[in-house]
Amino acid sequence: MLDFTYSNITKIVFGRGAEEHAGKEAAAWGKKVLLHYGGGHIVRTGLKDRVTASLQEAGLEIVELGGVQPNPRLSLVRQGIALAREERVDLILAVGGGSVIDSAKSIAIGVPYEGDVWDFYAGKAKARETLPVGVVLTIPAAGSESSTSAVVTNEDGWRKVGYGSVLMRPKFALMNPELTYTLPAYQTACGVADMFAHILERYFTREDHVGLGDHLCEGAMRSIIQEAPQAIAEPENYGARANIMWAGTVAHNGLLGVGRSEDWASHAIEHELSAMYDLAHGAGLAIVFPAWMKYVYRQDPERFVQFAVRVFGVEQNFHHPEQTILEGIRRLEDFFRRIGLPTTLSDANIPADRLEDMAEMATAGDTKRLGSFLPLGQSDVLGIYRLCQG
Amino acid sequence: MLDFTYSNITKIVFGRGAEEHAGKEAAAWGKKVLLHYGGGHIVRTGLKDRVTASLQEAGLEIVELGGVQPNPRLSLVRQGIALAREERVDLILAVGGGSVIDSAKSIAIGVPYEGDVWDFYAGKAKARETLPVGVVLTIPAAGSESSTSAVVTNEDGWRKVGYGSVLMRPKFALMNPELTYTLPAYQTACGVADMFAHILERYFTREDHVGLGDHLCEGAMRSIIQEAPQAIAEPENYGARANIMWAGTVAHNGLLGVGRSEDWASHAIEHELSAMYDLAHGAGLAIVFPAWMKYVYRQDPERFVQFAVRVFGVEQNFHHPEQTILEGIRRLEDFFRRIGLPTTLSDANIPADRLEDMAEMATAGDTKRLGSFLPLGQSDVLGIYRLCQG
Repeated sequence: MLDFTYSNITKIVFGRGAEEHAGKEAAAWGKKVLLHYGGGHIVRTGLKDRVTASLQEAGLEIVELGGVQPNPRLSLVRQGIALAREERVDLILAVGGGSVIDSAKSIAIGVPYEGDVWDFYAGKAKARETLPVGVVLTIPAAGSESSTSAVVTNEDGWRKVGYGSVLMRPKFALMNPELTYTLPAYQTACGVADMFAHILERYFTREDHVGLGDHLCEGAMRSIIQEAPQAIAEPENYGARANIMWAGTVAHNGLLGVGRSEDWASHAIEHELSAMYDLAHGAGLAIVFPAWMKYVYRQDPERFVQFAVRVFGVEQNFHHPEQTILEGIRRLEDFFRRIGLPTTLSDANIPADRLEDMAEMATAGDTKRLGSFLPLGQSDVLGIYRLCQG
Repeated sequence: MLDFTYSNITKIVFGRGAEEHAGKEAAAWGKKVLLHYGGGHIVRTGLKDRVTASLQEAGLEIVELGGVQPNPRLSLVRQGIALAREERVDLILAVGGGSVIDSAKSIAIGVPYEGDVWDFYAGKAKARETLPVGVVLTIPAAGSESSTSAVVTNEDGWRKVGYGSVLMRPKFALMNPELTYTLPAYQTACGVADMFAHILERYFTREDHVGLGDHLCEGAMRSIIQEAPQAIAEPENYGARANIMWAGTVAHNGLLGVGRSEDWASHAIEHELSAMYDLAHGAGLAIVFPAWMKYVYRQDPERFVQFAVRVFGVEQNFHHPEQTILEGIRRLEDFFRRIGLPTTLSDANIPADRLEDMAEMATAGDTKRLGSFLPLGQSDVLGIYRLCQG
């Protein structure tokens, strides 16, 4: 087990009506709040009105900034920073999913910084201060509600880059599973693949003697496998929605990764795919992760046998471990397909004519190695994209 | 799943040499520290010197208060409060196991309170302020290093009472698995039973649709079952010690219990046993918990089948669930015995002539009900003590 430092200050308020706590929780951090959100969904569902009423009841002043798009844009972040400074807001309340939260986190670290916020993402500066961020979560997926990181897209070159700092954990996250009843099945499934992938990135470690973390990862995955089909078949099944929503947080609050090297190659490989084609991140992960597994399992076959047996209950073939391993990967593909996701490029109607380009970009012309389980160069990444063809 | 609020601010610094961070972490909370500890163990091992040097290097002034005994005493807590006020200390650093940490937490809430600290434990007051508490952990067991509670013993009547508040979470916990190499096998085993029981108290819930929590609890238990015999057989096996140490924290940092009703009857039943006889808390739990399980399983046989199958890998008898259930309980007893713990009163040389008295005291003369899985009165508790006879 590796040495580690872990802290997670995010206060979770979970359950029916959690969004009604917005006023009380926000009031602990200031008097003027920037209400940050995406499109009309939270207006149509009445969520925005309920949150606004809660904030007003607590005596808070509200400044609004909507319009966050999936893959949140740097231009809106800059606009938010200017607005927050001009209005002297004390905190930012993100109402939405991962994109809205990431946008809010980026505004929050940008406000007290004298330079341009992109400096953090370009590796030119480290955040030393932040405005507090609160969250009303509407989509269980990215885990951004209690994570240390954010991803923004710079329209200049359409570069999608992440930045992380413990400062970026939201101060509070209000999580009402009922708010996810209206999520379409496909979006629910994409969120499920995203959280599942967050666990897989931590599970496939080269670190030795990490049994507790393994067991916790396996438990979280088994729970997701059990609950996701139910959440999709019965969108208003509170228990299934609640377990999935909480799983999204547990998957990415950092606890499952302590003491382990993590991988994250599949995320990088997927990013090229969703940047190139109009594909949801979760759907891309459902395609890339099984292919990555097929490419790398020889690096540590025992861990892949353990995955098959413990996560999917595969009957172990003790004489032919490869059979067990491949059956485990097949079951993962089955799971993704069962919840309505593509697991190959052709499932997603993506042609195979740009694989070389994507492999080159993912590795910056073979100058970067991706992941730590098996560090991957350009030809490896190309091999994985080819396996994505099915 | 029940609605819940969860936050855990404790910063964990885990790994080799973690205690060397004492100065840096303490300095974030003030200039003058009360170094609180038990007996000579931390002196003999050189730990006290290393921590002192780290504090001094960070420019901190040190006031010392040793002498914490197992089942920490109210008199020493009061002495600590007087000392901390007189010396105007800014924070308390507990170096030791659960008793030292609980004593430190009690001093910390007592200092800013104008009344007597026992008021909190007697249910007459709620803590509204606290001095910050830091921890250098030496015994993985109680989980107090990141929990919200403390237990103290009032010598006036030898009442052992707990109190809890989110204010009581330590601000930081420094956890070096190497510090546990010198723990005797029996003490290691008692710690293991304690952390295992912390998970069981959360696992046996009446709440429905708590699959994620179930799986996380099961994973943590399976990991402890796997690592504990190794930690005892090879006291300097870093990986086994590290997994056990981290399991003690995970078991009791609150995360495994969110959204569930918890039980805690077995803890109350055990408290009478260790108060009446000179028995370690963990050893008492190894006796009481299997007996409690035998007494209550008919309340929710399916959950006990799940425990047997998922935690101990019992081959399920689909036609006779009781066989599966009893085999699960038998395996738990086997596990406790394998690590050197008693599982019956006679194993621990405890006579059976005070069972009625203990049942009366545990339930305050049948005026109190214990637990929530199956609320227990005096005759139930007596029935459980009888099952403890083996």
